[in-house]
Amino acid sequence: MRVDKHEVRVGELAAGQPLSLPVYRFKGKGAGPSVYIQANVHGAEVQGNAVIYQLMKLLEHYELLGDISLVPLANPLGINQKSGEFTLGRFDPITGVNWNREYLDHGFNIEVWYQEHSHLDDDTLITAFRATLVEECARRLNNPWGVTTGHRLAVTLQSMAHRADIVLDLHTGPKSCKHLYCPEYERSAAQYFSIPYTLLIPNSFGGAMDEAAFVPWWTLAEVASSHGRELGVRVSALTLELGSQERIDLDDALEDAEGILAYLSHRGVIAETVLPKPMKRYGCFLKNYRKFHAPKAGMVEYLGKVGVPMKATDPLVNLLRLDLYGTGEELTVLRLPEDGVPILHFASASVHQGTELYKVMTKVFEL
Amino acid sequence: MRVDKHEVRVGELAAGQPLSLPVYRFKGKGAGPSVYIQANVHGAEVQGNAVIYQLMKLLEHYELLGDISLVPLANPLGINQKSGEFTLGRFDPITGVNWNREYLDHGFNIEVWYQEHSHLDDDTLITAFRATLVEECARRLNNPWGVTTGHRLAVTLQSMAHRADIVLDLHTGPKSCKHLYCPEYERSAAQYFSIPYTLLIPNSFGGAMDEAAFVPWWTLAEVASSHGRELGVRVSALTLELGSQERIDLDDALEDAEGILAYLSHRGVIAETVLPKPMKRYGCFLKNYRKFHAPKAGMVEYLGKVGVPMKATDPLVNLLRLDLYGTGEELTVLRLPEDGVPILHFASASVHQGTELYKVMTKVFEL
Amino acid sequence: MRVDKHEVRVGELAAGQPLSLPVYRFKGKGAGPSVYIQANVHGAEVQGNAVIYQLMKLLEHYELLGDISLVPLANPLGINQKSGEFTLGRFDPITGVNWNREYLDHGFNIEVWYQEHSHLDDDTLITAFRATLVEECARRLNNPWGVTTGHRLAVTLQSMAHRADIVLDLHTGPKSCKHLYCPEYERSAAQYFSIPYTLLIPNSFGGAMDEAAFVPWWTLAEVASSHGRELGVRVSALTLELGSQERIDLDDALEDAEGILAYLSHRGVIAETVLPKPMKRYGCFLKNYRKFHAPKAGMVEYLGKVGVPMKATDPLVNLLRLDLYGTGEELTVLRLPEDGVPILHFASASVHQGTELYKVMTKVFEL
Amino acid sequence: MRVDKHEVRVGELAAGQPLSLPVYRFKGKGAGPSVYIQANVHGAEVQGNAVIYQLMKLLEHYELLGDISLVPLANPLGINQKSGEFTLGRFDPITGVNWNREYLDHGFNIEVWYQEHSHLDDDTLITAFRATLVEECARRLNNPWGVTTGHRLAVTLQSMAHRADIVLDLHTGPKSCKHLYCPEYERSAAQYFSIPYTLLIPNSFGGAMDEAAFVPWWTLAEVASSHGRELGVRVSALTLELGSQERIDLDDALEDAEGILAYLSHRGVIAETVLPKPMKRYGCFLKNYRKFHAPKAGMVEYLGKVGVPMKATDPLVNLLRLDLYGTGEELTVLRLPEDGVPILHFASASVHQGTELYKVMTKVFEL
Repeated sequence: MRVDKHEVRVGELAAGQPLSLPVYRFKGKGAGPSVYIQANVHGAEVQGNAVIYQLMKLLEHYELLGDISLVPLANPLGINQKSGEFTLGRFDPITGVNWNREYLDHGFNIEVWYQEHSHLDDDTLITAFRATLVEECARRLNNPWGVTTGHRLAVTLQSMAHRADIVLDLHTGPKSCKHLYCPEYERSAAQYFSIPYTLLIPNSFGGAMDEAAFVPWWTLAEVASSHGRELGVRVSALTLELGSQERIDLDDALEDAEGILAYLSHRGVIAETVLPKPMKRYGCFLKNYRKFHAPKAGMVEYLGKVGVPMKATDPLVNLLRLDLYGTGEELTVLRLPEDGVPILHFASASVHQGTELYKVMTKVFEL
Repeated sequence: MRVDKHEVRVGELAAGQPLSLPVYRFKGKGAGPSVYIQANVHGAEVQGNAVIYQLMKLLEHYELLGDISLVPLANPLGINQKSGEFTLGRFDPITGVNWNREYLDHGFNIEVWYQEHSHLDDDTLITAFRATLVEECARRLNNPWGVTTGHRLAVTLQSMAHRADIVLDLHTGPKSCKHLYCPEYERSAAQYFSIPYTLLIPNSFGGAMDEAAFVPWWTLAEVASSHGRELGVRVSALTLELGSQERIDLDDALEDAEGILAYLSHRGVIAETVLPKPMKRYGCFLKNYRKFHAPKAGMVEYLGKVGVPMKATDPLVNLLRLDLYGTGEELTVLRLPEDGVPILHFASASVHQGTELYKVMTKVFEL
Repeated sequence: MRVDKHEVRVGELAAGQPLSLPVYRFKGKGAGPSVYIQANVHGAEVQGNAVIYQLMKLLEHYELLGDISLVPLANPLGINQKSGEFTLGRFDPITGVNWNREYLDHGFNIEVWYQEHSHLDDDTLITAFRATLVEECARRLNNPWGVTTGHRLAVTLQSMAHRADIVLDLHTGPKSCKHLYCPEYERSAAQYFSIPYTLLIPNSFGGAMDEAAFVPWWTLAEVASSHGRELGVRVSALTLELGSQERIDLDDALEDAEGILAYLSHRGVIAETVLPKPMKRYGCFLKNYRKFHAPKAGMVEYLGKVGVPMKATDPLVNLLRLDLYGTGEELTVLRLPEDGVPILHFASASVHQGTELYKVMTKVFEL
Repeated sequence: MRVDKHEVRVGELAAGQPLSLPVYRFKGKGAGPSVYIQANVHGAEVQGNAVIYQLMKLLEHYELLGDISLVPLANPLGINQKSGEFTLGRFDPITGVNWNREYLDHGFNIEVWYQEHSHLDDDTLITAFRATLVEECARRLNNPWGVTTGHRLAVTLQSMAHRADIVLDLHTGPKSCKHLYCPEYERSAAQYFSIPYTLLIPNSFGGAMDEAAFVPWWTLAEVASSHGRELGVRVSALTLELGSQERIDLDDALEDAEGILAYLSHRGVIAETVLPKPMKRYGCFLKNYRKFHAPKAGMVEYLGKVGVPMKATDPLVNLLRLDLYGTGEELTVLRLPEDGVPILHFASASVHQGTELYKVMTKVFEL
């Protein structure tokens, strides 16, 4: 076994049990970029654990140039929070705050920071910036007024992620095809994963891990560029949505582990060449990613298949209203306002008015 | 349109909204048994509504000898109770009481009742017994100390069901194949529905609608028989489990509507002959229906397919424990203690120790 | 410190964390009865922990004749299960089953058991019976089909409780005055606790800890008596309801710890004499303990004070219906169907029709 | 009865029930400002309904110069959402989004709007601006992709609020003393309500009703002022926190209704003079309103009284850890990092690490 394990403390439950995370570390030769991979920040999104399992088994057979840290089961509180037969793990059950919107938005002025450090050479500057990000996380956790449960978890994870050059956050959708959140500057990365659809996202912080990891570096690159120095964006951060929640599929996990390995090979984290799976890959800008909400309530037959392009004229949903039998409104067909590719749909088959039924990529192009 | 609709009041929500049910009634010629069909008493078990929809559309083309009452959306409070992306509709969110365990156990002594009414001829006796059951429901609802929310709903439904000769309660499992709960005396009924697996249940009250409907009649038949009079059991009550929860499938609903129609044809509720779908049908006594609980916690890949017989030596579940990578316990295969047919499994892919993973028929025989 | 601590394993959470209980043990001289005290089986009912804390501090200053085992925080899963700003700890969030209805109903035939062991002298018979109860618990936990999460917890606790002569289960109500559940045979015990109201309960098993502990012994006593041998009921089991849930009050906890100490003194568990608090104490038979349900929905002002006797003519509740302003039904006063003492009321101020508003002792008498 | 009632549709539940709100309207003589008052947007915060009830009864005896619209029970979905014995009404149970963060942030550029309309006289300009706000709400609700359940509710309420000059949103805290959210420009308003503590808030939109109502007007005033025209802020919007949630107290509601009446009298909505309750009133800037989070988990005795100033050296909380008895850490006293006035505390008595225990005003001054 080439992997080391340690536990990181992230919280404490009311009855006194400590919450901790297993962190696995594959040590590289120091010749390649370092990697941080986490899974299951949303409690029901378990498939990333299976992908980490398959990836760890694969990694035992490769030559590692960079270090790889892996954090499965990254949100024990969310994983353990059941409600009926499902995992209620998308938000803190006390506050409603989405576990993936709790990362720290670094408040310091990067323009000022750059000017104070611009005399440093590139490598020293990068090292200093990374240190600042990690220190800011520590400072936040030591606030004398305390921090929320979710913020403690998120900032602890973030603090580990800031130490890496490549950050992968493994999620799933509710009922979903595979898709990737990728910053616009990193567009070429989308060619390596076993994932057909990619959302290209801008340089703005909305609270998620990928943004927490890349936004400061993208901003630093822009600031430096405005001063005539081309640093490039030194950190890559991507969110992989690996199909549907509440599903473990070891065979499918192997396919995604191989896609990750192809990306790591491309980035020089492993010495061997691993080629990506040949497949068509498509992109969509985040501003064209649309949510379709139920215009009225009822029972829902989801007709639109995730990952399959549809016309605005195709039936998307049968909406059944048994309270209206005989009125002509007992069965309604809903359609999209424009052509698109349904990427995910809601998990329940009965919905209130306004429930988000589908997320849809529009204006899709081949990457 | 040959169907009448009325609304039945079953409760009132905190903010003042009345809760009511749509009741649809197809009037027969009075020459056949009467029928009561309800669906969606558990909030997430929506497919029965689609079956009622398809059945109502079919019924418009048949000659009805008996009356048919249909109650879709039978538990509006349960249907509307969401928790995260799923419907938390299996139990009252305040008390935890299963909505399908709230029916009235008629407490009166049927032996005494029979002796007081044994001078009546069969038809008059049956009419009087039915009236007593309905009155007992009314008396219960008028208790000066009030009744619980769930009991009000259940006893109101029960009161309608007691008026019918045939009672069908449409449910689903979590992730489930189709199966039927059928009282032992009614065994032949299992040949008509489009359902491969049947549980044969004894004469004992556990709180469910089917039991609430047939137990008094079975008991009456036994009491009469002990006095040398063969009344037979005059009411049939069956629970149909129509696949998985949180699913609307109109095509599949049509198949189940046709199975119900075949049973109604057999029973003389409709004038036309509708033949059951030719298929093998299997039975299991309730005492041989077993629950398999997770011996330890973890992420679950469900390998056992519902409706497909397995050996005790076959892998049932892959249990993944990412906190134990490298210990040899990261992946465990679970197996059944004996051969059987998995009928349903849990809906979530991560489980605490003790979670009911599968329900399994053992000692299955062909019906 | 005279107390030993060990941990008892009771379960495992989905993400892999073990669930265990702290068990504290004060060792006695072997000259008095042994005691088992647990608290917080319902997650929101935390005050029993404070009482155990105060009792342990007191016990350090007394001479112990019998052993005392104390299990605070007895249901870690329930304690840790939050929903909004409150603890959703009354039932398993997956199944809805009340955590205090999961104890094992010993299925073996005590009549048969007695006949097989009737040749033994009293002490040996008692020892053998106790061993049988503990073995049955172990056998249950080792079922090859597994046991539910709640059953594992409850039967593990029960197994410890069966080893004691005195079993105290510390609970609270929602908004409640202090009251005691006491088996009818143990009526005199009610004179010792700092608790004004006592429910006298019969020899029947409903799933709670107290019943699980005393019902087999009461039955054994009755069986022996029917054979002409007066064993007496050798185990005392009581449930103390220590005010309201979601409340820690250390001063009040001291008062209840002193009441428990007075009972233990009376029973010879400690050598010193501790007198009960002088106060009037009242009783009510369980059959006269009534639940009052909301006859309609609305906003509730609770006027009936817990622990204070009321007439049927006194206002119990103001029911406010803002949707009905101007109709004359915007404010309704609810009253009890008969005189009684409100013991507890619902925790929320807005209710659906049918919500249990109050529990009320009727036909109360001085003990 | 001088009040008119109508119903406003705000949604539809999965089982088909419409959700609507009662809107009560007292018609004024047209000589005073118009008023909009809503209550119970958070489901557990019911006391505002009682205040509206008392206020409506009072208003029948006054001469109204301006119109007053009152919307009690403003969030039926939230009010009806129970979880155990409490109302889970703070956030959408599907998405976790706080019901009071769903109001529309008007995206249009007010600088541009002003320049296009600056030729209008003051009254016409105000009327045109109000019309724009209302139209923007309508446009949002008619989005072809639909809107979320919570956004539909909020924007429908907002659309009514935009028609008024004075907007009062009635809330409560968890366990709370009375306090007021008041925009800095409106500081004098704090002298009229029966509320001792006031938070002074800046001109920034965080999603709440008060901000949705006043931010566009404050911005308009600033834009006009920057062009040399002093319009003043034409709309007042305040949030009243009326004590604790899950509480109806009609006497206390009368006191708050009288405070509102004093403010309406001051503003010329009613003809009669109603004087405010004489009491000391204190202020705090929002930036000095601090949250204190549990530094570790445990059982909590809340010692800090809401509304009573404390020193940093005073005990705030007893934190009890029964799993640590005998270690010296079984009872810890927590203290504030600085002096302040506890305004509210958490509702549960057992907390995870990081739970928000108290909200505290610091740097409090007399108003």
